[in-house]
Amino acid sequence: MGDDSQLEPPPACHCTNCKMHLRKPVERSSFLMLRKLRQVLTAIDHTTDQIFEELEDYVARKTISSDVDYMPECLNALDMVRGRLEKMKFYVNDYTINLGRSVCSSDPLQKVLFADYFSSPTKNTLLIYTYLDVPKAKIRDGWLSDPFELRASDGLLYGRGVSTGKGMTVCWLNAIECWLKEHQDLPINVKIIVETLHEMGSTGLQQYMDIKKEFFLDVDVIVFGNNSWINDESPVLSCSLAGWATFGMELCGGDKHLEGLAGGLVYEPMIDVCQLMDSLVDNRQELRISQINQMVKPLSHHEWELLETASFSEYDYKEKLGIRRLRYELGKAELLQQRWCHSNITMHGIENCFSRPGSSTMLPMTVMAKFTIKLVPDQVVQQVHAHVEDYLYSKHEELKMGTTLRTYVLDSCDSFSWPFDNRFTKSTIRAIENVFHFRPELTSGIVTCLPIASLFRKHVNKPIILLPYTQRMDCSDVINESIPAQCFVNYVKTCASLMHELSMLSAKCKCDLIYEYCNRRGNAEILEAARSTMGPSGTRKNIILQIPKLSQSNDKRRDETENPLKKFLCMPFRRKKKDQETPGGSNERF
Amino acid sequence: MGDDSQLEPPPACHCTNCKMHLRKPVERSSFLMLRKLRQVLTAIDHTTDQIFEELEDYVARKTISSDVDYMPECLNALDMVRGRLEKMKFYVNDYTINLGRSVCSSDPLQKVLFADYFSSPTKNTLLIYTYLDVPKAKIRDGWLSDPFELRASDGLLYGRGVSTGKGMTVCWLNAIECWLKEHQDLPINVKIIVETLHEMGSTGLQQYMDIKKEFFLDVDVIVFGNNSWINDESPVLSCSLAGWATFGMELCGGDKHLEGLAGGLVYEPMIDVCQLMDSLVDNRQELRISQINQMVKPLSHHEWELLETASFSEYDYKEKLGIRRLRYELGKAELLQQRWCHSNITMHGIENCFSRPGSSTMLPMTVMAKFTIKLVPDQVVQQVHAHVEDYLYSKHEELKMGTTLRTYVLDSCDSFSWPFDNRFTKSTIRAIENVFHFRPELTSGIVTCLPIASLFRKHVNKPIILLPYTQRMDCSDVINESIPAQCFVNYVKTCASLMHELSMLSAKCKCDLIYEYCNRRGNAEILEAARSTMGPSGTRKNIILQIPKLSQSNDKRRDETENPLKKFLCMPFRRKKKDQETPGGSNERF
Repeated sequence: MGDDSQLEPPPACHCTNCKMHLRKPVERSSFLMLRKLRQVLTAIDHTTDQIFEELEDYVARKTISSDVDYMPECLNALDMVRGRLEKMKFYVNDYTINLGRSVCSSDPLQKVLFADYFSSPTKNTLLIYTYLDVPKAKIRDGWLSDPFELRASDGLLYGRGVSTGKGMTVCWLNAIECWLKEHQDLPINVKIIVETLHEMGSTGLQQYMDIKKEFFLDVDVIVFGNNSWINDESPVLSCSLAGWATFGMELCGGDKHLEGLAGGLVYEPMIDVCQLMDSLVDNRQELRISQINQMVKPLSHHEWELLETASFSEYDYKEKLGIRRLRYELGKAELLQQRWCHSNITMHGIENCFSRPGSSTMLPMTVMAKFTIKLVPDQVVQQVHAHVEDYLYSKHEELKMGTTLRTYVLDSCDSFSWPFDNRFTKSTIRAIENVFHFRPELTSGIVTCLPIASLFRKHVNKPIILLPYTQRMDCSDVINESIPAQCFVNYVKTCASLMHELSMLSAKCKCDLIYEYCNRRGNAEILEAARSTMGPSGTRKNIILQIPKLSQSNDKRRDETENPLKKFLCMPFRRKKKDQETPGGSNERF
Repeated sequence: MGDDSQLEPPPACHCTNCKMHLRKPVERSSFLMLRKLRQVLTAIDHTTDQIFEELEDYVARKTISSDVDYMPECLNALDMVRGRLEKMKFYVNDYTINLGRSVCSSDPLQKVLFADYFSSPTKNTLLIYTYLDVPKAKIRDGWLSDPFELRASDGLLYGRGVSTGKGMTVCWLNAIECWLKEHQDLPINVKIIVETLHEMGSTGLQQYMDIKKEFFLDVDVIVFGNNSWINDESPVLSCSLAGWATFGMELCGGDKHLEGLAGGLVYEPMIDVCQLMDSLVDNRQELRISQINQMVKPLSHHEWELLETASFSEYDYKEKLGIRRLRYELGKAELLQQRWCHSNITMHGIENCFSRPGSSTMLPMTVMAKFTIKLVPDQVVQQVHAHVEDYLYSKHEELKMGTTLRTYVLDSCDSFSWPFDNRFTKSTIRAIENVFHFRPELTSGIVTCLPIASLFRKHVNKPIILLPYTQRMDCSDVINESIPAQCFVNYVKTCASLMHELSMLSAKCKCDLIYEYCNRRGNAEILEAARSTMGPSGTRKNIILQIPKLSQSNDKRRDETENPLKKFLCMPFRRKKKDQETPGGSNERF
């Protein structure tokens, strides 16, 4: 449904006041627009120092969402973003989130920002999702320097959050700012959602996806930063999202738990749980239900080749996760296929049993085991549910269990993939080409695991862009988290370039969704009106819609000679062939 | 070691001041002693109304130890016992117990009473264990009347605790009181331990068994009330105790838990836990380790016959426990053999996994499953441990598991049985015969599950008497808990009779354990000295060691006409043939 590929050419608009016809044909404006983009990309190259400094400010905030003590820091970081967005004429709302953690009532509630920049009803609307929180990090975990102090070394930027939400947020803020500084308006309408509970499963945000439906009505496409580079040199554009089905398997032996040595005659649900779970998997912990495994779309020859080029070291992987052995003794591509392309089953735990430290005499009589099956295209929740239910009930019958079985789907989200020739995918390819001068790799067989994107897909149902940010990570709390500085700068440019490319796609009339949407006046219309009043030679300064002079107003900028990043940026940088082709000033700097 | 059967005849005493030779030979005093016992039994028959009233007072106390709110009630009940014991010249100590429950610091700590009545170094010392707490009970659970209000109906006494600790405590207090009222001294030395945390596993008491070693030094035998009647008419004297071995089976896949859909390549400990647990049991949930099952002592022909006479209804059993089906479709005796005479395995839960309500994405990487194997004679912890460890490690190897296995014994206590011709067992048989006029059934194959007795056995290591109180119960929180009034009165008499019988056993000199024990003066010696001063015709009233006039001092006794129990006691009572043979006034009353 959300796949927008059928929208090219755009459908005829039937609303009486439609402004779509006012839009200049794409062919005529494309040269002008491309010139505008080049100006922005050059501007980005000239402000990299300031961008790194801003990243440094964000990294310094200990936005550890899993720790109640750092809730104020999360709110501070969110306020920083809010201030930046408001300066850029975004209309910003925040909504409170009560995590219900059992802490003092004086602890501040967390918030999520919903921001909106409306340029024109004739333009496409991009929703950017980003976040500011990070997993916990301490030097003693193995960090070579303070995780909350940005450090540059050998062309890499080290710091907690640089390769995840914080980094992406800074990129988007600067791409937007550069565009506004150069052209006083954005080429598209932009909405931003910024949260600080990403690492906590975005609980509160899910709720607002349903409550604030009107915010999403005019969104054309949602973009997520995606750690999908398969090696140092290959941004990979992923066109698929993993889903999941979390099951509750309840086994009930009686009405109440028994105490002491009361067993012998009663069927014990804990033992039945173990028997049923055991029946679900084989000795390699693979799901035994063949119908579910058969639903998986096979990899293409090209995707196999892509896996072969992946920068993956089995040793590093085990080191990072602190494990001794992998389930498979296979070559790199086969291992990565198991990890990225296949479904698997994970058991989380058992509710209602004795789970505290120490010993117990409790005989639990109703327990619920919880497990998740990761879904990859084309596994569908409904079918997987039916197969799991069938399997468990027939095994329960076969094993003649004396406890009563009930299964529940506790949480689920379908896997999802979209075609490579979707118009937004094509725009993204062009956006990446504008920066990298080569075509990104495309895949839907190598599945992206980004639950928040899947949740947006489920609740908001709009097309999705997974904009490649940096390399795939094996776990969220990686030690000595880093991103190549060049990769970071290129992402700022890719963000700007994506806005440009989306502006080249014809927008559709949304009057059927929002009353007289086409009649709305955005910043573009106001600017146009002001320009026509002042005449073509009107002084620019008077008509820039009160957008503050951003570079001057940023009082926090430190003296360049004191900046440790400045030193790094003057150091020789690992040059890559492809990077040297990048236009603008980046070659001079790195 | 604690088996005392080799003590007859008593060993020669080598201490210089030994008073053992002062003791009159058993043959000469037995007639006198038997007359004394008859006086006490008659006195008990004459005070049954007051005994029931006291039971009513105790039942009214909501001593629910599992609920923090009722901690003050537990302390109040303990104070009632303390007052009673102090009136009877017991020397009472209390020790505080910190359960470490996360409640307000203002909540009172629980206590355990250690009381001591020392009559003479020439007498045996009996330690009585009893308790006052009960499982929770509410009318809405299915009680026909308020569980904390004693109700008499059809010859049964209903109320929470009547068939457990509260009932037994009242019986012992009154048996002692009647003996003191009749003879101003007890025939033996008595020590009593009263606790209010029995239902919570007697945590604090276990600790004091080790700390207060000196309290237990001169104890000859410990008596526990035992719900071991196999039907309405057969008190069963059990000579065996079940033990247990609680294991922790830790499976470690990595150093830290993973989050999200991180599985696929790592071995997941939760799945391995289920596979190992499944390998431990068969489809009937019976332990697969045959060596452990083979250790069980077979039942004698007589014990089989005993099981056949048991009053057990499969329907009632399932009803009480709220279960639908039993693990076996067998006849009554075979079912009871499985329940009472066999070993079994119970799984309590898994530590360190996700055990809260709701769904999770957690992938636990180190978990510990906990299970207990109930031990019956002659299963020994050490051997069972070795077999379980062998089995698990070889299965772990056989299944080629990628996680690391470690096993722990979290808690254990050996099973234990003692011969029927043990001198304390023989005394107990005679004590029961004195009241019931027939020999109780004896068994060690039908195993008593009384963890507190097993713990005393483990920590204190003294001979044990399991004095049959009322019928076996299937669970501790039985609805409409009751005891036949006649059975209750007979237990008071059995307690008195047991004291008499133990006084007939020659005591051993304890000077090797306690310095100059034989030189200690007890109440008997003081009484003797006073008597000899006053001459044989001395006025009794002046020499009764300040023991208060118990019946008069009890101000709380209500008007007999208002007492609902009085009405019940005047009602016709279900007469049993054997009961009619009971001497004294009970026939007039029931």
